[in-house]
Formats: sequence, C-alpha cells, structure tokens
Amino acid sequence: MNNKQNTDLVFRQKKVQVAIEQAGVSACLIASNVNLYYLSGTIFDGYIYIPAQGDLLYFVRRGSLDAVPESQIFSIRKPEDIPSVLEGMGLSLPKDLLLEADQLTYNECMRLKAAFNLLSFDNATPLLRKLRSVKSAWEIGQFRISAAKHAQAYSTIKGAYHSGISDLEFQANIEREMRLLGSIGAFRGFGSSMEIFMGSILVGDNASTPSPFDFALGGGGIHPSVPVGANGSILSAGKSVMVDMVGNYTAYLSDMTRVFSVGKLPDIAYRAHQVSIDIQEAIALQCRPGASCAELYELSVAMVKEAKLSEYFMGTKQQAKFIGHGVGIEINELPIFSPRSRDLIEQGNVFALEPKFVLPGIGAVGTENTYLMGEKGLEKLTIFDESITIF
Amino acid sequence: MNNKQNTDLVFRQKKVQVAIEQAGVSACLIASNVNLYYLSGTIFDGYIYIPAQGDLLYFVRRGSLDAVPESQIFSIRKPEDIPSVLEGMGLSLPKDLLLEADQLTYNECMRLKAAFNLLSFDNATPLLRKLRSVKSAWEIGQFRISAAKHAQAYSTIKGAYHSGISDLEFQANIEREMRLLGSIGAFRGFGSSMEIFMGSILVGDNASTPSPFDFALGGGGIHPSVPVGANGSILSAGKSVMVDMVGNYTAYLSDMTRVFSVGKLPDIAYRAHQVSIDIQEAIALQCRPGASCAELYELSVAMVKEAKLSEYFMGTKQQAKFIGHGVGIEINELPIFSPRSRDLIEQGNVFALEPKFVLPGIGAVGTENTYLMGEKGLEKLTIFDESITIF
Repeated sequence: MNNKQNTDLVFRQKKVQVAIEQAGVSACLIASNVNLYYLSGTIFDGYIYIPAQGDLLYFVRRGSLDAVPESQIFSIRKPEDIPSVLEGMGLSLPKDLLLEADQLTYNECMRLKAAFNLLSFDNATPLLRKLRSVKSAWEIGQFRISAAKHAQAYSTIKGAYHSGISDLEFQANIEREMRLLGSIGAFRGFGSSMEIFMGSILVGDNASTPSPFDFALGGGGIHPSVPVGANGSILSAGKSVMVDMVGNYTAYLSDMTRVFSVGKLPDIAYRAHQVSIDIQEAIALQCRPGASCAELYELSVAMVKEAKLSEYFMGTKQQAKFIGHGVGIEINELPIFSPRSRDLIEQGNVFALEPKFVLPGIGAVGTENTYLMGEKGLEKLTIFDESITIF
Repeated sequence: MNNKQNTDLVFRQKKVQVAIEQAGVSACLIASNVNLYYLSGTIFDGYIYIPAQGDLLYFVRRGSLDAVPESQIFSIRKPEDIPSVLEGMGLSLPKDLLLEADQLTYNECMRLKAAFNLLSFDNATPLLRKLRSVKSAWEIGQFRISAAKHAQAYSTIKGAYHSGISDLEFQANIEREMRLLGSIGAFRGFGSSMEIFMGSILVGDNASTPSPFDFALGGGGIHPSVPVGANGSILSAGKSVMVDMVGNYTAYLSDMTRVFSVGKLPDIAYRAHQVSIDIQEAIALQCRPGASCAELYELSVAMVKEAKLSEYFMGTKQQAKFIGHGVGIEINELPIFSPRSRDLIEQGNVFALEPKFVLPGIGAVGTENTYLMGEKGLEKLTIFDESITIF
C-alpha cells in the first residue's frame, strides 16, 4: 500500500470517527466485508473497533492487514475476546455502540450485544452507507481504473459475436475478455436481492421478463434458482442486444450499458435510445450539489412522457421505479434516483444513470453511464461509443 | 415443473412441517433465497409461511411461482401485510414463530418480530440446515446433473492450457467452458466468508498463502478486496496446478478438485496425492449412517501422520481444520468433517471430501470428490480421472 492510499485510508477513518461523534455515540464495531474493506483497505476475518476518539483497533481472526499500524492489530479467536482486550488497554467499554444491523445477521448482532453487555444498540449501516456515498480522492481514482478497463472490455464486444450465437455464448466470450483484463470476478451488492453473475445480457423480448431481483431490468435467466439475465436467446435480426456487464477491475464498481444489434433496428429503437441519452444530458446539466434525486427522477419521467414512451420506460410488465443509483464497493449504494428518494446530490457522489426502455418485439435500448459529481460539474467516467452498434 | 419434481417439493415441505411440529412451535417464516428455493423450487422476492399443520402460504413481493397452487399465493407490498392476510383467512397469529436468525439481518428479523407482535422467536436456520442436509430423490438427481457436467467441464481443462499461460488466463478459459456447458454462474455459500468466483486455481506456492475466507485452501488472489485464489502465477515445470472449480449446473453444487502439472512433479507430490485418494477410500469403507464425522476426520489425521505428511496437511502457514463438508444449494452445508463436529452421517447426505496437502516449492496436491451416502454405501458422484495429469 502506497503513501497516497494510506493517507486516504486515514482520511476515511477520520470521517467515520467524526460522524460517530456527531451521532453522540461512543464507538462503532464493524464486521461486514464491505465496511472492513472501506476502513482497512483489505478483507479479513474479524472486526474493526472505531471509537469516536482515539485509535481504531483491528481484531483479526484470520487474514493479514498491511495498511494499518501493527500496534493496533489484535489476534482474537472469537468476538467475546474484544471487550477484555479493550479493558486490558485501560479503555472503558462503550455503553452505546453502533452495529451493522442491516448487514450482520440477527444472531451476529445479538452475540456482539451480549459480548459488550449492551442494553441496546443503534444501527451503523445507514451512517456508513451515507459516508461511503461521498467518495475520496483515492476512491475516485479506483473508479477511473475500473471505468477505463470497462471501456477496454466493451471494445472487445464486437469480436465476441458470430452469426447465430446465443446470448449465453456471447456472454461467456465477454466474461472471458473481462477476466483477461483483470476483472476480480466477485461482485458485491447490498441486500439479498442482488444475485447475478458479472452482469447481464438481454436479447429481444427476454428484456421484458420480470425478475425478483433488484436490477433495473430483468430477464428470465437459465435456471429458476437465479431467475435473471440471459435465457438462451439467439442474437438475430431486429432484436436489440443490451450489454450491462459490471466494471469490477478494482473494489469500486463502474456500471455501464451499451446496445448492439444484428442489422438495423426499427426506428422507434433509435428514437427511444436517443431519449435515454438526452435524459442523461439533461440531468448532467441540472445536477449540482444540493440537487434533489427525486426531482431528477421526475425530470426523466417528464421527458419520457413528452416523447410518448412512458409505457416502455424501465420495463413493460414490471417497471422499475428508479433510473439511477450510487455505485462503490457495492453496486447499489447511495444516492438513489427514485420518486420517493430524499437523497440530495453531494460533491464526491459517484452514481450510475440508466434510463432504459423495453420495446415489445425489439428488446431493451438506452445507455447507462457512471458519473462523478465533481467540483466543476458532473463528469462521465464511462467513456465509450453510445450509439446502437451494428455487429 | 414436472410431476416428479412437484411431488418431491411437497415431500420436502412436509418434512419441514413435521420438524416444526416436533420442535413444538406453531410456524416458521422463511425469507432467505436458499430456503425459498428449497421450499418453492424458485427464487422470488417474498416469504413462505409454514404452519406446523395446514397449507404453506406464499407471500410474494416480486417474482413468479409456478410450482405451487395459486390459492396459496398472496401478493404483498411489505412483510407487515402478512399477519392481516392470515387473520383474513381466519387463522390465528402464531405466538411462537421460527425466523432465520443466522441468515436474515438483525433488522429484517426485528421487523418480522414486530409485524407478528412476538415477544421472542427461535432460530429456523439450524433446523432448515439440518433438514436440507438429507437430500431427497429429486435433489440427488440434480447433483447427478451437476456432477456429470462438472466432469465434462474438467475434460476441457487440458485444452485450456498453453505453454507460459498464467493461472488467470487458464482460469478464464475454464470458466468460459463451464459457462458454455450451462454453469449458472452465481454461487451460494452460508455466511459472509464465502466470497469467491466460480472456484479456485492454485499454482505452486500460491497454495500456501493463507486467506481470510473459509475454504480448505487459500491463495493470494489478485486484489485485496477478494484475497483468495489465483494470483497471476505462471504455470511452469515442477509446480502443481490445483483446479477446484464449482459444479453449479443446477442449484445443487457438486465440488471436485483435480491436479495438473507441467511435466513431472517431485516424488513426494505423487505420494501425498495418493494419500489423499487413500483417505477418501478409507472413509468410504467406514462411512455408514450413524458414523461420526469427527471420527472420520480423525481417521484422516491418523493416516496423514502414518504417512509422515502432517506438516503439509490442509495448508502449511494456516491449516484448515476440516477435510469435508456437506454440499447442496450452498457450498458449505452439513455435515462437517472436523475435530469438534457432532454430526453423524445420515442416509441422503451429500458431501465433499477434500484431504489436501500443500508442499513447499511444489504446491497443492490431493483430490476432492462429492459423495452420496446411499442405501448401498457411499457413492462417488464426481467421476473423473484422479491422477495428477501432465498437460
């Protein structure tokens, strides 16, 4: 870990400590992989104890931690060992502790509650999610690496096609190119409704099949145990091919969708596709720190209505009620661009906008890009030709 | 869904109802993807209410359910809608309800507890894990499909190699073949210590790098956010290449490891590899309903000691303290073959045995196979050449 990265880590830790102090609690105990990575730069099996004041302490069951001072690392066998380590250091046990109540299981939380002899505890998850939504300089650099490789992977997509190919073979070819470019493979999401593999390819009417998962569009999938994405459709004339594969080349995920086709599509496809691009440009003009994500969502709905495409917006049989979402170590971070969102844009937010249309008999069109709310306005991180590309 | 599959589903549901009744509680409410699939044959966004007596009820937020009677399906917006549906049917609300306390988050459980106005609740997770460890006829058929495709995928491994190839390119080639054969991609594990992508390739000394995850062996990985598996090593003379890719061709996972090499390995590699095979054969002879998994583990330890290979068994710097584990919808089910395991073998158990060795300067050797505890003894499901194969 280099110096720049280390300074940034300390900055992120400090940010969490300030928030803990402002929340009026003594400390926070972290155990989820996402937050462990955010606050230590690695995944290990253990816990991070973050007091409002003083040093962070790392309790490690398994794994190694290179980026933090050795004096702050303690080897433990079980979480019940933590309080006695704290007491051994002359620290008093916190009476109020934040635990990740939306990430840890019920029993994990109850075990920690008992270990610290707490009467109750508050939820660390929303606090961490909110802090993680404002990205630091180093984190933004990680997105840039992911987005550049993402574009490089998408430049191989035309080569992944051959006449008569199925969506599954097409996806397998793209996945291989992604892996050769350094895709980490694994893919994190918040909640249990994010089971998917490397992303999704939707060909023709498969795009209109609803899915129980929380993605913008669905797809039937190949098995009822993972009902989402490619379903064995053949790429053929007049069907759109929507490619929405993840940019997991660092821990920070870029999100980008592009559309391909075998020969020309009907005119409505190009018209709807252009509305998607126009919506993103309109949002980019309006987007500034303090802007309401719900209002930006409504802007997109108004533009779709104006274009008389409402019935195709974000699906047909099941219409997703959001057009964008924060990205980070998880694919579904804050802010959320939905009708009821109370999120306001902050400088340092990184999010994906994905106003998409599903056209019966044709399939899905529209692009998705990952944006940074920078000092000088909204910056698109996923730079790659946005037109519907004919194979 | 065909008749046989449907009959089997009803059988699994009945099994759970009997267990609920025996546990002396009124009902169980399921929300985890794994148990939803087990009890409905699909993944949906919602809940299954399982009373000790009477019909199962399916509460669906999103998704479709083909395998269950429509009269038992109810559309809901939120879990708080469930109690009023029950009351509307003239059912009394349960005073004691099992919830998946080791799978749902703290807040998910607390929300359900409040919705049902419960004073407390018991844990459904161990009950379901125990029941799921005894596989039904249809489930065993699913393993057979996965294992057969698994072997088919492994028959392409020699073709994935070329001189000077890295473990990453080698793995990308294998993953593509797996996907072409119908690998679902996604991969489920119990707990948060199972983040991995399609499986692991370990070349040479990378096999001795400890990992924070709960797999038998580790590997450094390519990024601190997923520190496990291939790390960019070149496949070269004198290094073993351990291939441990998952068999996810149905929802039921087969687990199989084979070893390859570039040219001949030192003699100790073949000797240790044979001990791994011998251990599995010895266990197969001893394994019968009622056998103690801890004793079978100790049998393996004794054989390793006899062979004077203890220092290399299940790792060097970090030695895993198990040699086998149940497989199913999750890769780490019951029973567990570890020193402290209280699990006794039951007919219908499906599990992987993976006594492995890590030899300094050479790498990992040993095989892993998935077995069914059948009526007539232990049956190996993963049939594929077990010798160390030279590319």
